[in-house]
Amino acid sequence: MANTSEKLQELKAVLAEVTDLNRAALLLEWDQETYMPRGGVESRAEQLSTLLRLAHVRFTSDEVGRLLGELEDELGGRSFDSDEASLVRVTRRDYDQARKLPPDLVAEVARAGPTARPVWERARHDENFGLFAPYLEKNVELNRRIADAIGYQDRPYDALLDRTEPGMTTDQLEAIFAELKMAIVPLVADIARHADTVDDKVLYRAFDPDLQISYALEVVKRLGYDIERGRQDLSTHPFETSIGPGDVRITTRVSRDFFNECFFGLVHEAGHAMYNQGIAHEIDRTPLWDGASPGVHESQSRLWENLVGRGLPFWRHFYPSLTAVFPEPLRGVDAESFYRAVNRAYPSFIRVEADEVTYNMHILLRFELENELLEGTLKVKDLPEAWNARFKSYLGLNVPNDREGALQDIHWSYVSFGIFPGYTIGNLIGAQLMEKMRVDIPDLDAQVEKGQFAPVLGWLRKSVHRHGRKFTPNELMERATGKPLTAAPWISYVQRKYGALYGLEAARR
Amino acid sequence: MANTSEKLQELKAVLAEVTDLNRAALLLEWDQETYMPRGGVESRAEQLSTLLRLAHVRFTSDEVGRLLGELEDELGGRSFDSDEASLVRVTRRDYDQARKLPPDLVAEVARAGPTARPVWERARHDENFGLFAPYLEKNVELNRRIADAIGYQDRPYDALLDRTEPGMTTDQLEAIFAELKMAIVPLVADIARHADTVDDKVLYRAFDPDLQISYALEVVKRLGYDIERGRQDLSTHPFETSIGPGDVRITTRVSRDFFNECFFGLVHEAGHAMYNQGIAHEIDRTPLWDGASPGVHESQSRLWENLVGRGLPFWRHFYPSLTAVFPEPLRGVDAESFYRAVNRAYPSFIRVEADEVTYNMHILLRFELENELLEGTLKVKDLPEAWNARFKSYLGLNVPNDREGALQDIHWSYVSFGIFPGYTIGNLIGAQLMEKMRVDIPDLDAQVEKGQFAPVLGWLRKSVHRHGRKFTPNELMERATGKPLTAAPWISYVQRKYGALYGLEAARR
Repeated sequence: MANTSEKLQELKAVLAEVTDLNRAALLLEWDQETYMPRGGVESRAEQLSTLLRLAHVRFTSDEVGRLLGELEDELGGRSFDSDEASLVRVTRRDYDQARKLPPDLVAEVARAGPTARPVWERARHDENFGLFAPYLEKNVELNRRIADAIGYQDRPYDALLDRTEPGMTTDQLEAIFAELKMAIVPLVADIARHADTVDDKVLYRAFDPDLQISYALEVVKRLGYDIERGRQDLSTHPFETSIGPGDVRITTRVSRDFFNECFFGLVHEAGHAMYNQGIAHEIDRTPLWDGASPGVHESQSRLWENLVGRGLPFWRHFYPSLTAVFPEPLRGVDAESFYRAVNRAYPSFIRVEADEVTYNMHILLRFELENELLEGTLKVKDLPEAWNARFKSYLGLNVPNDREGALQDIHWSYVSFGIFPGYTIGNLIGAQLMEKMRVDIPDLDAQVEKGQFAPVLGWLRKSVHRHGRKFTPNELMERATGKPLTAAPWISYVQRKYGALYGLEAARR
Repeated sequence: MANTSEKLQELKAVLAEVTDLNRAALLLEWDQETYMPRGGVESRAEQLSTLLRLAHVRFTSDEVGRLLGELEDELGGRSFDSDEASLVRVTRRDYDQARKLPPDLVAEVARAGPTARPVWERARHDENFGLFAPYLEKNVELNRRIADAIGYQDRPYDALLDRTEPGMTTDQLEAIFAELKMAIVPLVADIARHADTVDDKVLYRAFDPDLQISYALEVVKRLGYDIERGRQDLSTHPFETSIGPGDVRITTRVSRDFFNECFFGLVHEAGHAMYNQGIAHEIDRTPLWDGASPGVHESQSRLWENLVGRGLPFWRHFYPSLTAVFPEPLRGVDAESFYRAVNRAYPSFIRVEADEVTYNMHILLRFELENELLEGTLKVKDLPEAWNARFKSYLGLNVPNDREGALQDIHWSYVSFGIFPGYTIGNLIGAQLMEKMRVDIPDLDAQVEKGQFAPVLGWLRKSVHRHGRKFTPNELMERATGKPLTAAPWISYVQRKYGALYGLEAARR
């Protein structure tokens, strides 16, 4: 009979192999987005499919189930502070979820995305929702079947959320979104009425692309992104990917005449990357070695991008060096004007281009619609109408066409409901962490203004990064801030910041 | 009972999976040599080890053995022109070789290289053979154990050759090398006496690195390298790697003040790449999809690099465009002088820097020494002395130290005897193919001079590339040229070419 430690070793050996396969797949995907020649498409699809299938088969083997069962008995009652107890808990969660999906459903889901995506692209290009509707109907059905396979109490969305944000419920999110809606809809309207207060024309001047990249890279290295354990490349869509603890890569894209794209894109991805660079090495090659959830991951990227990188102390520090690199486009603009420019907020149609304030309204809309589609209270054919009506009510705009409306996101062309809330959860977590960080580091702004980012990174390392997936998002927030996820810190942050930027204090009800 | 076609499908499914794993490993290795950050070393080693181990386990499974056995019965007697019969034959060869090596020997071999390599590096740097000797002794012993495990009649080297150049024997190679030695040793001495006849100073002028790369890339695209199904990057050591039929990559390095490094390096790698780009798609994702052997592969790179790329018709075509790109360094040098410069030959110490004529003598030396080490007639401690004596006799030079002598190659730090002959086999095959090609395409030089490379590539596609590994090197040569491998075409090629270049006709005995 193997003892507990031997069984743990046995389990870890399987998990290490699964990790290696998944990481190899990540490198293949990174390559596909950066350097792969056009001719490589077909072979790459085969390779990825083989790697991911082998990883899945190995991970969902009966052997893993047996080891988990025995280890649960033997480690039962240990606190999740223990790496071992956490390993068993998190592996069990992943294992059950993977095993609950019948292979034919998994195969159907895998086929559905690549089938629907080109149709979605054409439908979006032609502004023809009808073309895409049958595929979305199929995807809604598949999401429903996934939810049924995983199981839930009342709300099918709970099952999907459990895959992405463990421990969060549809009810919890509905309450949070309700609070957000109440505070943000009037704020957005208020900002729209004072739109002229902030001028961001400076961002649309000519910035040399190579200099943009080298400057942004220097900045993220200063923030704490370790380039010896990562690298930066160009890709159509920016992303972060972790091939290993010492190989956490980021990509960016660059626009010749829009400053934000490259700079804030890279700060955002570096935020993701610093998270993974900070996970404890002890849990490498296990399911614990990753971000706690997509939402928590997004909190790190948004915290650096918005709460730090769009802050006045940040620009007081960096603006002099930025003007040295870009003397022409920045002529006659001072640090405070630049800070105002990068924070311009206004209602707009496209989620990925939305500013910090309006962004969560885009998510609220999708969260509501996904739920209604899933629960059958909204038909796919009525989606554009529902989208447009809600868009008007939350953001005050009339959607001109489905390309800028219900067809804008790639997500629904894949079978991936339950992803969108993570973006808002990220925004909220970021603000909640920052509120606590400000208590723990009273001179935070002064540090940032001096270009000292180690206190911020150190606090995040200790409170968030090193734990990897050991704790659920709510547990992590309890440990880091003493409270589960709440919208209050973010709401008061945007009210304060945008109230000042747009001179809304007087106008506030 | 499954029928033959079902069994073939079953076998092909396993082989496709093994191919995918191996190709994923190739991409990981490509990345390691091009873009991987320093911090990625540890994880990458784990990932590669997992992928290669899984590929090995899957390939050597009893299931594959059973399918092979049944298919051999059912397909017996079919000509190897049939893809299926060839698939079974080649898979059987690989399978038996892989199964014959006991796992503990495989593991020991895998550990030996990484252990010996840093010692070899230090020994070479310090010019201290004694430091490396115990590791080379270990590697000799491991090579012997590999030979014993694989089995052989008289010569242990036969077993090693069978892994790289199937169908070739030590005796066959000894006869070929004897013929080479007889013809080339006096030619080398003759050239050395007329060393002043050829001046290559022009190659050492200042060539802008970026322009070197872009020019060389344009040239290899003109030769027939399909960049839509490949790409070019920088690496410390140039190589070609095939991630898939549509993804055949090459790398190069570039020296600011030596023209040959980038240009001929890239033509060489493109020669390898065009081979793999020409393999029939029907045999993709099987063991047939690769070059027939390292030697045959080398024939393609050398043919393009030397027989085409160092020919006068080639430079008559390209020199005008080269001078347009590099007017300064090429001022006052005409096409014929440039052709003479790139063909300068002279005895030198380092194999990888050797010219076309002397190169095979470097290989002969190693082939003899590996055999003697393996058969125990030479002790490792006596290797430098044997090396130096033979070097003097073949190339007329006194080796000044072991760094430029017995310690120069990385190969012996890994357990890889039996690799070196492939380089000479490649040279000879290239000349033998070219001789036949000239019969089939009488105006070949005129075509090349007009920049028409399609006839050459087309001939190689038809005679060599498309077959992949279906035929052994000797079979391939029989089919393409009517003869097995022979040294005569290469000997007469270098005698003619270098006789003319160095004005040796009169001096010829």
